[in-house]
Amino acid sequence: MSEKAVNTEGYPGTSRALATDLYQLTMAQGYFSTGLSERQAIFYMFYRTPPFGGRYVVAAGLQSFVDWLEQHAYNAEDIKYLSSLTGRDGSPLFTKDFLNYLSSWRFRGSIEAVPEGTIIFPHEPMVRVRGPLLDSQIIETTLLNLMNFQTLVATKASRVKLAAGEDEVLEFGLRRAHGYDGGLSASRAAYIGGVDATSNVLAGARFGIPVRGTHAHSWVMAFDNEPQAFAAYIDLFPHNSVLLVDTFNTLDGVRNAIEAGHRLRQMGSDLMGIRLDSGDLAYLSSQARKLLDEHGFTGTRIVASNDLDERLITSLKSQGAPINTWGVGTKLATAFDEPALGGVYKLAAIENRNGETVERIKLSEQAAKSSLPGCLDIARLKQGDINAGDVIFDTLTEKPPCTSEKVITIISPEDPWRRKIIPTKNLSVGRLIVPILEGGRRIGERESVAVMRKRTLSGIREFDRAIFRFENPHVYPAGLSQDLHEHREEMRTHEFEIIKRRLSEMENNGHNNNNSEPGADK
Amino acid sequence: MSEKAVNTEGYPGTSRALATDLYQLTMAQGYFSTGLSERQAIFYMFYRTPPFGGRYVVAAGLQSFVDWLEQHAYNAEDIKYLSSLTGRDGSPLFTKDFLNYLSSWRFRGSIEAVPEGTIIFPHEPMVRVRGPLLDSQIIETTLLNLMNFQTLVATKASRVKLAAGEDEVLEFGLRRAHGYDGGLSASRAAYIGGVDATSNVLAGARFGIPVRGTHAHSWVMAFDNEPQAFAAYIDLFPHNSVLLVDTFNTLDGVRNAIEAGHRLRQMGSDLMGIRLDSGDLAYLSSQARKLLDEHGFTGTRIVASNDLDERLITSLKSQGAPINTWGVGTKLATAFDEPALGGVYKLAAIENRNGETVERIKLSEQAAKSSLPGCLDIARLKQGDINAGDVIFDTLTEKPPCTSEKVITIISPEDPWRRKIIPTKNLSVGRLIVPILEGGRRIGERESVAVMRKRTLSGIREFDRAIFRFENPHVYPAGLSQDLHEHREEMRTHEFEIIKRRLSEMENNGHNNNNSEPGADK
Repeated sequence: MSEKAVNTEGYPGTSRALATDLYQLTMAQGYFSTGLSERQAIFYMFYRTPPFGGRYVVAAGLQSFVDWLEQHAYNAEDIKYLSSLTGRDGSPLFTKDFLNYLSSWRFRGSIEAVPEGTIIFPHEPMVRVRGPLLDSQIIETTLLNLMNFQTLVATKASRVKLAAGEDEVLEFGLRRAHGYDGGLSASRAAYIGGVDATSNVLAGARFGIPVRGTHAHSWVMAFDNEPQAFAAYIDLFPHNSVLLVDTFNTLDGVRNAIEAGHRLRQMGSDLMGIRLDSGDLAYLSSQARKLLDEHGFTGTRIVASNDLDERLITSLKSQGAPINTWGVGTKLATAFDEPALGGVYKLAAIENRNGETVERIKLSEQAAKSSLPGCLDIARLKQGDINAGDVIFDTLTEKPPCTSEKVITIISPEDPWRRKIIPTKNLSVGRLIVPILEGGRRIGERESVAVMRKRTLSGIREFDRAIFRFENPHVYPAGLSQDLHEHREEMRTHEFEIIKRRLSEMENNGHNNNNSEPGADK
Repeated sequence: MSEKAVNTEGYPGTSRALATDLYQLTMAQGYFSTGLSERQAIFYMFYRTPPFGGRYVVAAGLQSFVDWLEQHAYNAEDIKYLSSLTGRDGSPLFTKDFLNYLSSWRFRGSIEAVPEGTIIFPHEPMVRVRGPLLDSQIIETTLLNLMNFQTLVATKASRVKLAAGEDEVLEFGLRRAHGYDGGLSASRAAYIGGVDATSNVLAGARFGIPVRGTHAHSWVMAFDNEPQAFAAYIDLFPHNSVLLVDTFNTLDGVRNAIEAGHRLRQMGSDLMGIRLDSGDLAYLSSQARKLLDEHGFTGTRIVASNDLDERLITSLKSQGAPINTWGVGTKLATAFDEPALGGVYKLAAIENRNGETVERIKLSEQAAKSSLPGCLDIARLKQGDINAGDVIFDTLTEKPPCTSEKVITIISPEDPWRRKIIPTKNLSVGRLIVPILEGGRRIGERESVAVMRKRTLSGIREFDRAIFRFENPHVYPAGLSQDLHEHREEMRTHEFEIIKRRLSEMENNGHNNNNSEPGADK
């Protein structure tokens, strides 16, 4: 546990290829040195627990990952830094051979995944990576980093949008987001999840997301008084006039905005909106609406912000707050009430020394924490316009669920006693996993975030609305095929047998050791 | 509220100068067009509520902000994108004159701040920005984005380190962090806050932070069995041998690690450590320690990870868990239990048309939410080796607190009835705000994160330990000087008088309007 090499100057020219956990690189060297690196492996990414007390996530972040992967190459400074790292005894951590290999390495694997904006459920494969063991292992951290966060925020955004109904939702969380790119990727994911626009200019430029914004309290404070500040603003932006009214006193501010509105009308424009950013939004929005209507500004919209999330929006709407546009910042961009999605990446199959594919599971005493073996896909069963259930199946060992059977059985991955039997009459079966990268090369067209956003919004309409409830949401049947369930049970039993045998052997050895080496120390 | 220009192609060449809220740019154009842009202004950043139920924060993120500022220039593609944005009527949002100005604009202001690694308290100025109104306004979002998050994580890290005592703490939250840079800046801030090393290779390279890591479960699963996997690993890394023992069965894994340890000793090395990543860490670490000791591996360290934070570490230590190294991931890198710090940036003074400096406050009915006027600094009072209190004072209107007075009074910014009177006998007074940038140019030497980290660790020892308690921490006296308190009260009274007068005037006008324009609509 001694300290590794520290260079206080830093290596400023290092690339994002190094944005990973050190152990990915030590393992890669291990695979390289033991000759395992070329064995074909299959990994998959999934999550176990849906965030925010819900039942689902909206997948997002894939394209950001693929972009990273396509640029993923170790530059000379990356290699220089890695060669500076040492083990406990001061000898280099990485061998010259390995670093030499790494310097010309590019990702050679294939990636299949659910498209961004797809609604998916616990244990379902979100991303599948197939390729040489070294390649499919070394990308783990970045895949999880990009997918976990964007999926989390897209999911949060979909909930906020569900709460807002037909109202507009703006995302403006940049000032509380987790760094520059925490903000940029939050804006991207929030848009995929369904929000209408962002305040983040760079997200607008890079991804083509609509951007919004007018002025802050400091604009008002820079003038001698509020009427002056409003007058100056509408002169400059007669067609972008959302006035923030709560710098001093909110209803006084509304009256000043109404004055400005009269002036806007004389100029041939109109008062687009007012914004409330503090206080009791239910009370103030009602009073503001009353004042606006009384003075003939019935078309002026009320924008509200101030620590909003899906629950507060639901509460305000149930109180009849006449708010038209919801500005959601911190709670969305940081996924405040649950700021991490625990998506994981597990080995599901690997080639053995005879070139045969051997399936693997990560064991756990709880069924919920065991991973699934094979090359997984999701079949989504549809009854009319509504999804009836998802079946996770292993393409290596079974055929996709078939409507020529009378019924299809779905078995909970967490509790084998929970099963759903779905009659196949009038059922259609779609598959969710699509190819993205083949042998390191991108396949197919690059999607815009607008297409992904439409997928989310239309996807939501294809489920029973009860699964999206905030309180005690309905459980959508998503689980294992009968075959996959049985296959996993066999593998678990087999693995536990091995452990049992080893434990009893060990117990004997252990006793011997105890007797032969009492108090032995180094 | 119509949609602004959307370009689905995106502008990939846009720069981080655009990583801001749109309203900063619309306001900047407003200041430019009204001629206010050159007025000298003073803004300051502060926070109101300490995170995690604590009483303090560890300031961090300043250098990241200054780095951004020094590169901050709008490139041709930034300008091209901005010129594509339109208002509601389809006309350009930004004028050619303004965009032309922006394309050659560079930050001209001065920045003073508390150095990174300084422990500070609510309402204290963390960063002070002085300069032309346009310059000091346009940087707000990025300043808050970078400082809020890094300060939050540095604070969390300091708590984790306090819980771990003399034990080592490793940060490895990248896979759950908020995007690439959410991870990179979390590693930087966690190190400033006191952790010993990170798994994030890029953070190691860029900032000179020690990096750590060995292998994951997938390494074990890539082999036919655990003993084989361990044997391969120690052959490759005899001096970096921390073996993850819980892939199948933890205590079985410990026994396999002990076998590997015997082999390491034959090779002239030793078993550095084992890592536990699941299950009951109190029970498993005790059992593992017993096994290791029984077999003579008393020097082998136990590394534990799995959703740890300062409270869980405290609990495990109180149970006597023999863990030597704490790996903290998600809970630290996302500041899981409170993932946003609500730091704000407020105008405190501005030049009027006669060239005089006029102080400003942002009003609120609650004292706690009103901002402070002037050009603020912090005086830290020290009695022997221990800090006795902080005084926030306004350098424009008063002298620093002086030990030639008999006592110094500190008044709570949130509740004027709470005061602390500190005798000046044997008191020394230090000032916390130091110059960073003058007229757009960096002053003084660039600090390494190692220096900032030392500042945190030694800074903590200069306070009564009771303020760092996790439950009901002691309140450290940090508040306003008598003069600043009185000055703010006068300003508040004055502003409320103005509002009162306007409200009664408005009320009359309002009635007139109601009568003259019943039901008027556009």
